[in-house]
Amino acid sequence: MRLRAWNFETRHPADVSGLAALLASGALDPRDVLCVLGKTEGNGGRNDFTRDLAMGAYEQLLGPLLGCAPGEVQDRVIFSFSGGTEGVVTPHAVVFAREGDPLDARQADKRLAATVGATRAFEPWEIGRMPQVLETARAVRALVAGLKVDGPGDVHLVQMKGAIPTVTEAARREAEARGLSLRCDMVFSRAASALGVALALGEVSEDALSDAVICRDWSLFSGVASCSAKPGLGRTELLVFGNSAYATGELKIAHGVLDDILDVAGVEAVMRRAGVDPARVRHDPDERAKIVGIFAKSEADPRGAVRGRRNTMTVDDDISDTRYSRCVLASVLAATTGETRVYVSTRAEHHGPLGGGPLAMVVRAEGASR
Amino acid sequence: MRLRAWNFETRHPADVSGLAALLASGALDPRDVLCVLGKTEGNGGRNDFTRDLAMGAYEQLLGPLLGCAPGEVQDRVIFSFSGGTEGVVTPHAVVFAREGDPLDARQADKRLAATVGATRAFEPWEIGRMPQVLETARAVRALVAGLKVDGPGDVHLVQMKGAIPTVTEAARREAEARGLSLRCDMVFSRAASALGVALALGEVSEDALSDAVICRDWSLFSGVASCSAKPGLGRTELLVFGNSAYATGELKIAHGVLDDILDVAGVEAVMRRAGVDPARVRHDPDERAKIVGIFAKSEADPRGAVRGRRNTMTVDDDISDTRYSRCVLASVLAATTGETRVYVSTRAEHHGPLGGGPLAMVVRAEGASR
Amino acid sequence: MRLRAWNFETRHPADVSGLAALLASGALDPRDVLCVLGKTEGNGGRNDFTRDLAMGAYEQLLGPLLGCAPGEVQDRVIFSFSGGTEGVVTPHAVVFAREGDPLDARQADKRLAATVGATRAFEPWEIGRMPQVLETARAVRALVAGLKVDGPGDVHLVQMKGAIPTVTEAARREAEARGLSLRCDMVFSRAASALGVALALGEVSEDALSDAVICRDWSLFSGVASCSAKPGLGRTELLVFGNSAYATGELKIAHGVLDDILDVAGVEAVMRRAGVDPARVRHDPDERAKIVGIFAKSEADPRGAVRGRRNTMTVDDDISDTRYSRCVLASVLAATTGETRVYVSTRAEHHGPLGGGPLAMVVRAEGASR
Amino acid sequence: MRLRAWNFETRHPADVSGLAALLASGALDPRDVLCVLGKTEGNGGRNDFTRDLAMGAYEQLLGPLLGCAPGEVQDRVIFSFSGGTEGVVTPHAVVFAREGDPLDARQADKRLAATVGATRAFEPWEIGRMPQVLETARAVRALVAGLKVDGPGDVHLVQMKGAIPTVTEAARREAEARGLSLRCDMVFSRAASALGVALALGEVSEDALSDAVICRDWSLFSGVASCSAKPGLGRTELLVFGNSAYATGELKIAHGVLDDILDVAGVEAVMRRAGVDPARVRHDPDERAKIVGIFAKSEADPRGAVRGRRNTMTVDDDISDTRYSRCVLASVLAATTGETRVYVSTRAEHHGPLGGGPLAMVVRAEGASR
Repeated sequence: MRLRAWNFETRHPADVSGLAALLASGALDPRDVLCVLGKTEGNGGRNDFTRDLAMGAYEQLLGPLLGCAPGEVQDRVIFSFSGGTEGVVTPHAVVFAREGDPLDARQADKRLAATVGATRAFEPWEIGRMPQVLETARAVRALVAGLKVDGPGDVHLVQMKGAIPTVTEAARREAEARGLSLRCDMVFSRAASALGVALALGEVSEDALSDAVICRDWSLFSGVASCSAKPGLGRTELLVFGNSAYATGELKIAHGVLDDILDVAGVEAVMRRAGVDPARVRHDPDERAKIVGIFAKSEADPRGAVRGRRNTMTVDDDISDTRYSRCVLASVLAATTGETRVYVSTRAEHHGPLGGGPLAMVVRAEGASR
Repeated sequence: MRLRAWNFETRHPADVSGLAALLASGALDPRDVLCVLGKTEGNGGRNDFTRDLAMGAYEQLLGPLLGCAPGEVQDRVIFSFSGGTEGVVTPHAVVFAREGDPLDARQADKRLAATVGATRAFEPWEIGRMPQVLETARAVRALVAGLKVDGPGDVHLVQMKGAIPTVTEAARREAEARGLSLRCDMVFSRAASALGVALALGEVSEDALSDAVICRDWSLFSGVASCSAKPGLGRTELLVFGNSAYATGELKIAHGVLDDILDVAGVEAVMRRAGVDPARVRHDPDERAKIVGIFAKSEADPRGAVRGRRNTMTVDDDISDTRYSRCVLASVLAATTGETRVYVSTRAEHHGPLGGGPLAMVVRAEGASR
Repeated sequence: MRLRAWNFETRHPADVSGLAALLASGALDPRDVLCVLGKTEGNGGRNDFTRDLAMGAYEQLLGPLLGCAPGEVQDRVIFSFSGGTEGVVTPHAVVFAREGDPLDARQADKRLAATVGATRAFEPWEIGRMPQVLETARAVRALVAGLKVDGPGDVHLVQMKGAIPTVTEAARREAEARGLSLRCDMVFSRAASALGVALALGEVSEDALSDAVICRDWSLFSGVASCSAKPGLGRTELLVFGNSAYATGELKIAHGVLDDILDVAGVEAVMRRAGVDPARVRHDPDERAKIVGIFAKSEADPRGAVRGRRNTMTVDDDISDTRYSRCVLASVLAATTGETRVYVSTRAEHHGPLGGGPLAMVVRAEGASR
Repeated sequence: MRLRAWNFETRHPADVSGLAALLASGALDPRDVLCVLGKTEGNGGRNDFTRDLAMGAYEQLLGPLLGCAPGEVQDRVIFSFSGGTEGVVTPHAVVFAREGDPLDARQADKRLAATVGATRAFEPWEIGRMPQVLETARAVRALVAGLKVDGPGDVHLVQMKGAIPTVTEAARREAEARGLSLRCDMVFSRAASALGVALALGEVSEDALSDAVICRDWSLFSGVASCSAKPGLGRTELLVFGNSAYATGELKIAHGVLDDILDVAGVEAVMRRAGVDPARVRHDPDERAKIVGIFAKSEADPRGAVRGRRNTMTVDDDISDTRYSRCVLASVLAATTGETRVYVSTRAEHHGPLGGGPLAMVVRAEGASR
């Protein structure tokens, strides 16, 4: 298995010229495209249509090349577009391609490996409760096994589209019959998805988990999960990234947990783990060129303060706190790494500690040939 | 002359409880209050009334103590409230007090000195042209002389409220008679004010200046100026901060120029000059406690990019670029210093290079008694 | 009892020049000022400080004239400032003054009468439940009795500041002990306040009411209530307007219920009841001059549609639906009456039918001397 | 010539299901589709991508049916999507289809006729000046002649995409050589386009026009023009609607000028001219069903007032005045007609008087068969 990745700056949400040129050059087989993670210049909210515009453009591009209808491209390629390029963020898309299966023999160096999968379909009453947590954990474990990593410590990013099955009248009645209030919303789906990853990777133990702690005990979290929930999606889609001795290529991944959205030390720690020198990256283009993708989750701390001092992100009725927290964390990531093509998405229930969140970086390994 | 300063976190725009308690304790004589620089939680635009609310509250507090009507407090104390506490910024007010005149004898260490003054009144046609530049320079030089600093290099911040005299019909005719299109607006008043400071302090030479270069040649700038322009103000109000061997107390000031709004190295350089250790300040509360005030100007680079990569700050019709650039720079300052009480105001014509801007820090000097 | 009223256009939130001039002229005794209802140009949300700015300005004006501290003016005059002057709305303040008590003898014509009062203090667990409804109804009935109106049909506007007592830990425990989830928020306080008025005035019967129907059965509503809830307020403040044969002066009040925020026929019906000719008011300044104050509640229908067709007010993450619904209803009121000084406040739980709301107009009676 | 039209409510910007179903039914030949005018739920500004999303969806639908690439559909069908469905506006698209040429013989009743065309390409220095006005007038006159209407009074709507040619360095030099400052922007292109229509239709006389009056003398205007300007467009695209005795079908068009954005009488006058009864349309679904399309231009009066009273639309830095003026006028149109599928686009230089604008309605003629 060899992973390759390109980070394309985009001129507008439907700009797929970077991938189009790459495909036209013959340097990439369209059947190898695994996923596209991108930031589009919308508001990141309910009326953000830039994600649809981007996805449609990729489908138009890839459909003919894959020999399928545009609407079927989604079944072959994972798209994860996050709206909101606040502040200095450069709209961009990171395209990952995968060639071959895991090798039979261990290599000297671990390299980026990735795989995709899904949970089973969920019932509405399962969302935000232990059944979602346990099934997510099961699916993650199964995918991790296929990556041939040495252990959960080699998994650094689990990108998810969390299930929010449509609530039918029958579902409502079943929930009532079970004596359960429905938690079938974005907040709970993201929360249970993150805890599922945390359980699968040993970040929390199963006996610490129960329906009661979900969205309640914020000391339980994953530093690897990244979930967006999507209304109407019956099952959770999973994209697992890790480093494997059975993968080759030039890419590696590292991650860490940021204590808050100003955590420069946390960002620098991830860079060091990834083999990037924090002291050089800001002014040395070669060092910066090692960075292929930066992926993080942000949240305006609901307690209304960072570092013990009040801010107004959560009490501003003109601008959403989601836009503020993305802007702040992206500014810190860009200032610290020198790279403005950063992917920060918001809402981070059980993703890192309250007010903080997970950060992953995909980099070119030191000494790897380009 | 001894300068003292307090940085009060505020709970809302009219919260003057910090200063009120200080005055009630007898630790500060109200007649010594020199100026208040604060960030209030509005939008920083035309319909931001939080600045009026703050100013009114200080006037209500200080009027009776100074034995004057609230409306007359402005004649005795300089207020500079800047709206917009985007992201992690903590609404706050820095109160400066000054005791006595400059000493007669030099001290071993230079300490913060400050003074206030004003230009003469301007004609509308002078704004944004050389007459405003030259008169601003003259006024700054005169104030600097009174500070007893060793030279222009000891001046680190010139905070200004720039004149925008009301344009009467007579003024319009006079401008026409002179063959001049009126530049009597915020943009040009800030620009000429900054160039006046630059001229006074030797940052640019007079022969490089002319009406034609104002708002045209962005290579000419001050790294010390900070100007907000105010419609209806006939003359420019000036507040000059420097380090003087004839001042005493525990405070010092330093400044630098940021190349862009992500310039971490620039921020760290200012900290070093101020005697704050960038490597310790983020995690060491004692080091951070040295910082009394952080003052900066920001601008979303009008070329639509930072570090060579596109961003959407200047083409977003939902959120003003002024809010974005304040949010970005304040995030970088807060992340780098650990202090969220940062004063960033926007629009920075000839304040630092295009897309960058000046930064000043007031700190407690190493070894100074508290 | 004689009511007088003035509708002052304001130049900014702290503009009290209209009332100041009136008081300076001697035409109004400051002790007669009963209440001020105004629209200020903020966002109407949590970070709208224009209301504080307006109230502070009135307190500064009235305190010295009433011989009390500014902070005590609130105990003598009711202030109800609503933020948000979207679209064509003119920022303004309607000042009501009251002279004398209800007359002893009936007059031929009923005239505007008004009175103020309050409920007892509420426990947090009572808010949004029957105790709040019943106590609000009791207080309204008592106030109505004092107005000497002929019956509940003569009451046309009950303006309320709804209680939201601070939730202490003890209060939380008491609620738990009673097996009640706390409803101590704005939504439920407004809802129960409106139902209390509806009960007092016979708009709903007591046996139709229970904890279960509050914020559930939207067929129950008042067409007279207008409540804003205020965190930290222990009791609900009440301002009751009606027409009484024991009142004199030139003012009258009428009201009606709008079916939705486009209900022109509903607006015209209220005008007719008030003695204003809908066919003339738009182009005849004399007819329009009859109108002294227009007071309404608006809501973006939570079903996402008006007149059976979808709109995007409730799914727009850039602009709040509160701003949209105020803008729409105010536009309709201004277009229909020709008057842009309209007071529309949002959130209308049990105030009129779902998506609609109450409308009241204070007018100069036909034939009344000015 | 027979015109047909359908007004499709859309569920999201890319919803083309209405037209798709119509085409699938065989009731409409795709080659007859003339134009689509729609409102999409974006912000109507520079970062409104909902228009691209809508256009792309129509191109995907129509390309295969017209036997051309999606990108070529624009050459055969005029698309005019306007972003911004503030308040009660229902996102929708009005599809017009045209069958055959103008008849040879006059009919008893005039019916809707429409045609499309374009000006010649413009030089940048011509934009906003008399050459653009004159060429626009020439092109309009030529198109009107082809419609076989009895005179300019039978033309009721000229929808335009105004040219804004790209300004090259050569163009800049040519403008300088001519001693002309460039006016090559949206404001001037819309202004000159409207005046071109006004000249062609006799609304203003040629001797009243000159470079100097454009964007200066607001008493000169068209009540029929509706122009949006598009950067990069070399020539102005024109879509002319009128009533012709040589057309058949059930549709007619009428128009009028609104004095301001609250002008109910103006709206009612247009309805009457169109054969719609203002007194019945609000409550009678059959009367309302006559209305097929409502098209208007709005502007927040730059003088900051409507009906002599101040509003805050133009001084609000949180929400654009374009969104406010669309919301206000659309509310008035919807309230007056009962129809929320209204097409209001903003910026109306020389489109109606200052603060007002043109209004056109396409209706089913009384007695016409459905």
